[in-house]
Amino acid sequence: MKKDYQPTSAYALQLDAQDKLASFREAFLIDDPNLVYLDGNSLGRLPKAAIARAKQIVEEEWGRDLIRGWNKGWWEAPSRVGDKIGKIIGAGEGQTLVGDTVSLNLFKLATAALMLQPNKTRILTDTFNFPSDLYVLQGIKQNLDNRHEIVLIGARDRDITPDLAALEDAIHEDTALVTLSHVVFKSGYLYDMQRITELAHAKGALVLWDLSHSVGSVPVHLDDCNADFAIGCTYKYLNGGPGAPAFLYVNKSIQEKITSPIWGWWGQKNPFDFDLEYTPAPGAQRFLVGTQPMISLLTMEAALEPTLQAGMDSLREKSILMTDYASYLTSNLLAPFGFSLGSPLDSAQRGSQISIRHEDGYRINRALIEEMNVIPDFREPDNIRLGFAPLYTSFGEVWEGFDRIKRVMEEKRYEKYPKQKLTVT
Amino acid sequence: MKKDYQPTSAYALQLDAQDKLASFREAFLIDDPNLVYLDGNSLGRLPKAAIARAKQIVEEEWGRDLIRGWNKGWWEAPSRVGDKIGKIIGAGEGQTLVGDTVSLNLFKLATAALMLQPNKTRILTDTFNFPSDLYVLQGIKQNLDNRHEIVLIGARDRDITPDLAALEDAIHEDTALVTLSHVVFKSGYLYDMQRITELAHAKGALVLWDLSHSVGSVPVHLDDCNADFAIGCTYKYLNGGPGAPAFLYVNKSIQEKITSPIWGWWGQKNPFDFDLEYTPAPGAQRFLVGTQPMISLLTMEAALEPTLQAGMDSLREKSILMTDYASYLTSNLLAPFGFSLGSPLDSAQRGSQISIRHEDGYRINRALIEEMNVIPDFREPDNIRLGFAPLYTSFGEVWEGFDRIKRVMEEKRYEKYPKQKLTVT
Repeated sequence: MKKDYQPTSAYALQLDAQDKLASFREAFLIDDPNLVYLDGNSLGRLPKAAIARAKQIVEEEWGRDLIRGWNKGWWEAPSRVGDKIGKIIGAGEGQTLVGDTVSLNLFKLATAALMLQPNKTRILTDTFNFPSDLYVLQGIKQNLDNRHEIVLIGARDRDITPDLAALEDAIHEDTALVTLSHVVFKSGYLYDMQRITELAHAKGALVLWDLSHSVGSVPVHLDDCNADFAIGCTYKYLNGGPGAPAFLYVNKSIQEKITSPIWGWWGQKNPFDFDLEYTPAPGAQRFLVGTQPMISLLTMEAALEPTLQAGMDSLREKSILMTDYASYLTSNLLAPFGFSLGSPLDSAQRGSQISIRHEDGYRINRALIEEMNVIPDFREPDNIRLGFAPLYTSFGEVWEGFDRIKRVMEEKRYEKYPKQKLTVT
Repeated sequence: MKKDYQPTSAYALQLDAQDKLASFREAFLIDDPNLVYLDGNSLGRLPKAAIARAKQIVEEEWGRDLIRGWNKGWWEAPSRVGDKIGKIIGAGEGQTLVGDTVSLNLFKLATAALMLQPNKTRILTDTFNFPSDLYVLQGIKQNLDNRHEIVLIGARDRDITPDLAALEDAIHEDTALVTLSHVVFKSGYLYDMQRITELAHAKGALVLWDLSHSVGSVPVHLDDCNADFAIGCTYKYLNGGPGAPAFLYVNKSIQEKITSPIWGWWGQKNPFDFDLEYTPAPGAQRFLVGTQPMISLLTMEAALEPTLQAGMDSLREKSILMTDYASYLTSNLLAPFGFSLGSPLDSAQRGSQISIRHEDGYRINRALIEEMNVIPDFREPDNIRLGFAPLYTSFGEVWEGFDRIKRVMEEKRYEKYPKQKLTVT
């Protein structure tokens, strides 16, 4: 890039100089220092420790231990790695397990929650929930148990914050399950987990939190909030690698009361007895099903180390500084070009991402990716999403990203791109 | 190992000299040439191509492409790799998809098959089916739709071949689904896919084959047999790595008639529209759910190459020679020590494994692993299972394995081990 694209903001450089987490950037592969990567909320960067671990798993464990690897740490990996993630989400041991995908874990836990309460028919969620979560709930209703009603609290697509009053009013005595995305994928809104969970429990409902956009970026206190269930992915702020296995959490207090709808040998009490009849394993283990992808799973385990070392309080502190700074830059640098902030102004209500809105957002996003070496992402109808990963995003990088967006606007670089929306099929 | 453990069988060496596939052994990492690895039916050896590919995925694709990797081949991987496996199982394009686990794919397909036929209540299977498959069926019956009856044809645990007459008699007009393991995990019995499928179709039942123990070792002709569904794993004879993602097959003729019970965004028509309502993707794609573990999946893709290059007919030819030879050695070398063959004598009814039975099987298996550098595995009550992977197992290795078993017996090395069974918990 040309000289005039180097960060020049004294304020950003000052923030970087004061950043206690700055050295963590060195724990990641940064092959192109000029790339402004603001999509760690979709796919986290590669931790260097993961490179070495992946090589070890393939060449030493698979290649040399062969089948013996299962007795040298593979078999226990879902619970071992689950407990490590438990430390990040405020979950004591024996409640978090790694395996399968977010959607599959939602299917298992939501179905289990409904089966536990045969006399309650309502599933409460909102339009801010990740669409795939809504699909899973629709599938449960349609295919498996058409008794249920999905109550979809309808914040409008352009809203930044949910209609909390409507959501809270909708929690009734016949609500079986309240399920929400802890941090909303478009606006970055952060729910008050404690409050919603308490309100739901007061009406006898169970609560399931999707932590995909909060784990590793926002402190989560599942045990303290007495949450019933949680699910989440490991490839965003946890940097576990593309499609790394997901996790699930089941509060100890209800583990023995519920059964998975999918019975498999990893959830069987004594899998190597090869009994013909299923007996559920104790605890949350019964929500495992089949053999997990070990190369992806164990690489992800190594990738958790920077997060565990930095600690969620430090990460949150830096994250708030970054999203505050980005909000400030949106108002001061970009508002003159027609941008508005698509995320809460109050950092207490915000995850580690912001959306900036512009009617030409789709085209601006393409210009950033194709011409400016900036990677955000775009979400309909007008959101350019900017994710800040406190482990490796620098304040200089944030400033640089905004400066390049400004340049796209000044030079009208976006005008050459078509106005269609991004549909990958 | 001592000199007298070197292969000395002129016949084995002659078979190796005549082996047209012998050079494929060089495509695999063989770090310990003295190891007799007869457990490729549990976890295949590491193809060298997978080493390079895993490194490339981590360091170049994840590390440098970052989120852009999804548009450079990751997103299409389940169908691209599915079609490659399709070539191995006789499936034309657009019917095979890679993702999730064998058990999860069984859950999706078996539930879909039952939902398609609301007036039929019987699921037909047998005690030779892999226990995890039985658990999944039991879970479907118990938790999701207690209308169904699982008809379990009860060959006794020590039987080598199924009770085909009983199985065939049990296919009734009210049978919704017949589901079997194509090759049986204990005895290695190989079902006649064509015959069972035809019999089932004659009564209007759908058929689902678990190919876990046959894919890559036995030619499979799903399209020619007009099979409805298949599932299978990729970490046994396909050498995809520990826990590599599984596959599923849905015959083109019924793809548009059925729906997955688990709706997720990878099975959604236009996933990047982020619609709030699920619309199934065309074809088998609708049986995908969530984001797949790309490091495991793409490493597995590279690992398929030796199988694709060798071709199933050549692999089957060598496999039969190996299991014939192993059966011969069982009778001639081991029978005097109390061993009997736990697999069909007729190679047409046999996969690429044999079980050898002995009342001290558990202890003999331990002595082989701990003292003799031989890796078979043990299955209750008395089976030592020996798997032969025609891509990399040599005839000399087979001979050597039997010679070491003989030595364990001559020297009564097994007697020091306890008589308990192997239970990994």
